[in-house]
Amino acid sequence: MTYSTAIVLASRPNGNPTPSNFRLEIHELPALTPGAVLLRTIYLSLDPYMRGRMNAGRSYAMPVAIDAVMEGATVCEVLESASPDFAPGDIVLGRSGWQTHSVESAELVSLIDTAGAPISTALGILGMPGFAAYAGLMEIGRPKPGETLVVAGATGAVGSAVGQFGRILGARTVGIAGGAAKIAWLEELGFDVALDHRSPYFEEELAVAVPDGIDVYFENVGGRVWNAVFDHLNDFARVPVCGLISQYNASTPPSGPDRLPELMSAINTKRLLVRGFTQRDLIPAHYKSFARDVPRWLADGRLKYREDIVEGLESAPDAFLGMLEGKNFGKLLVRVSEDPTATPTPRSE
Amino acid sequence: MTYSTAIVLASRPNGNPTPSNFRLEIHELPALTPGAVLLRTIYLSLDPYMRGRMNAGRSYAMPVAIDAVMEGATVCEVLESASPDFAPGDIVLGRSGWQTHSVESAELVSLIDTAGAPISTALGILGMPGFAAYAGLMEIGRPKPGETLVVAGATGAVGSAVGQFGRILGARTVGIAGGAAKIAWLEELGFDVALDHRSPYFEEELAVAVPDGIDVYFENVGGRVWNAVFDHLNDFARVPVCGLISQYNASTPPSGPDRLPELMSAINTKRLLVRGFTQRDLIPAHYKSFARDVPRWLADGRLKYREDIVEGLESAPDAFLGMLEGKNFGKLLVRVSEDPTATPTPRSE
Repeated sequence: MTYSTAIVLASRPNGNPTPSNFRLEIHELPALTPGAVLLRTIYLSLDPYMRGRMNAGRSYAMPVAIDAVMEGATVCEVLESASPDFAPGDIVLGRSGWQTHSVESAELVSLIDTAGAPISTALGILGMPGFAAYAGLMEIGRPKPGETLVVAGATGAVGSAVGQFGRILGARTVGIAGGAAKIAWLEELGFDVALDHRSPYFEEELAVAVPDGIDVYFENVGGRVWNAVFDHLNDFARVPVCGLISQYNASTPPSGPDRLPELMSAINTKRLLVRGFTQRDLIPAHYKSFARDVPRWLADGRLKYREDIVEGLESAPDAFLGMLEGKNFGKLLVRVSEDPTATPTPRSE
Repeated sequence: MTYSTAIVLASRPNGNPTPSNFRLEIHELPALTPGAVLLRTIYLSLDPYMRGRMNAGRSYAMPVAIDAVMEGATVCEVLESASPDFAPGDIVLGRSGWQTHSVESAELVSLIDTAGAPISTALGILGMPGFAAYAGLMEIGRPKPGETLVVAGATGAVGSAVGQFGRILGARTVGIAGGAAKIAWLEELGFDVALDHRSPYFEEELAVAVPDGIDVYFENVGGRVWNAVFDHLNDFARVPVCGLISQYNASTPPSGPDRLPELMSAINTKRLLVRGFTQRDLIPAHYKSFARDVPRWLADGRLKYREDIVEGLESAPDAFLGMLEGKNFGKLLVRVSEDPTATPTPRSE
């Protein structure tokens, strides 16, 4: 008999979620049936899209049911296997959610190559966020050499990948993030310009940073940044809309004036392309080239990434709520249990 | 010495244009230099885009200068030619604008085949409006057989072409127009459903008309129709943005709430494609197939069109102002002078 400690959705938030929307529970897991595997969660990925799953309305996926385990991608160790495809000790990518253990159909998990990059990257630069960045750029953004690419949330899992992929494709890259430490890291990553959206002069600084206008704006934030970017979009600019984290917690539409006609007018006269996407929709068209390009770029040292790891499943709700306010710095992960592949860190003294 | 009577832009409108924004003038035309032709205007096309040219700000083209002749496409007869490519009597498509005569470079005019459809169609279904409809559908809308295509301004030059092309491509077509006579004509054109946006129950009627949602909304109106359409867009719907006639005269943004975040959220979660275009941008990709398909469909009787012809250049300002309020019924043209190719109408009695 195996037990799993899990975090379930206790109630739906109205506006900002709070810790009371979550509840820690202990479940008894079902026995293994043929084709299933028993998994121990090592890393749980926390991502902005999860905010949408907490709402009742259908977004691009079904909501998490009340009292159900919160969804999420995970890196796990196989503890027991009733599938010929996996053996105990295998490290796999799963979708077991916010819990310590789970029983999954072997068809829904996939092996992670432990000889390559650290296994946690399967949830970051080599996983869903990295692919969202890649596919959104390749399918919609299509930056040409010398064009100006702007990305907000630029130290996040998706944004940092967007900027670096854009640089590799030859674009001039402008990254936007909040706070001096993040700005310093953007410069390390090779962004041509790094801007702090907390600056009182952010709008003016952006104008200076894009003397030739903006050809691609990768949208994953919304709000103040989108407002500022808007006026600088060039004719034929492309706007892949990946997410809108700044407005996920809004419960009522903001007061006027109504800028919708202005946006439509800009789309019309500047002949903009504004297109929403999820990474899942773009797997058939772009996953193969992602799997060819990105691990190679990472191995070559052309890509950097940063992880923000919190310890223990019980830390997940607070870390998630902080992420919605931009408090994380890098790809946000929960280390749910020990990573057997990690190089032991030498203790100081 | 040839004189031209012309309508010039006397002043820029603030909000709704008025007749005082225009002025009738008589110009002396320059002598013919090699490579030029002297033209007599037969038909002048009046189109919504001209409203944008009256503003000072750059739209997708330069504004008309104060005191300059209003721009416009024309069908003309060649009176004198200093070009080996044209002879007196030739009927040509030109861009001579709101005037009775003009001297043009022969490179900017093109011969119209007088043996085919009436020469006025070179300004409508076989001209710029027809091509805008065709290219916007083919490049952006891409309706698949069985999908639902909605178009507003559906009796206009562009809208009526969009609906009929959509039907030929196998889509279910919903046309929106104002008033009983226009609705009756939409049914004659073969729209599956025709809706009157003046109905107090328009929103409810639209909901009933699109039980499977909307896959393509061809936007050339904006305002109330776009608001109503918005909620019915399916996942992966495409919105070619060709024009926004309902908002061209707005001088201040409407009061709140601000619906821009709601639009961005719909683009994100429904993975919409919203893209502005002008027909000119799409000539390289689509003109060849337009020139192959559309004259054939017209000759086959699969396409109908309707013209709203006003007499005399001096009627142009009023007719243009009326069009911005939806008063025209069909492609709006000014008959500036006699059409030598027209079949004489038998007199009654």
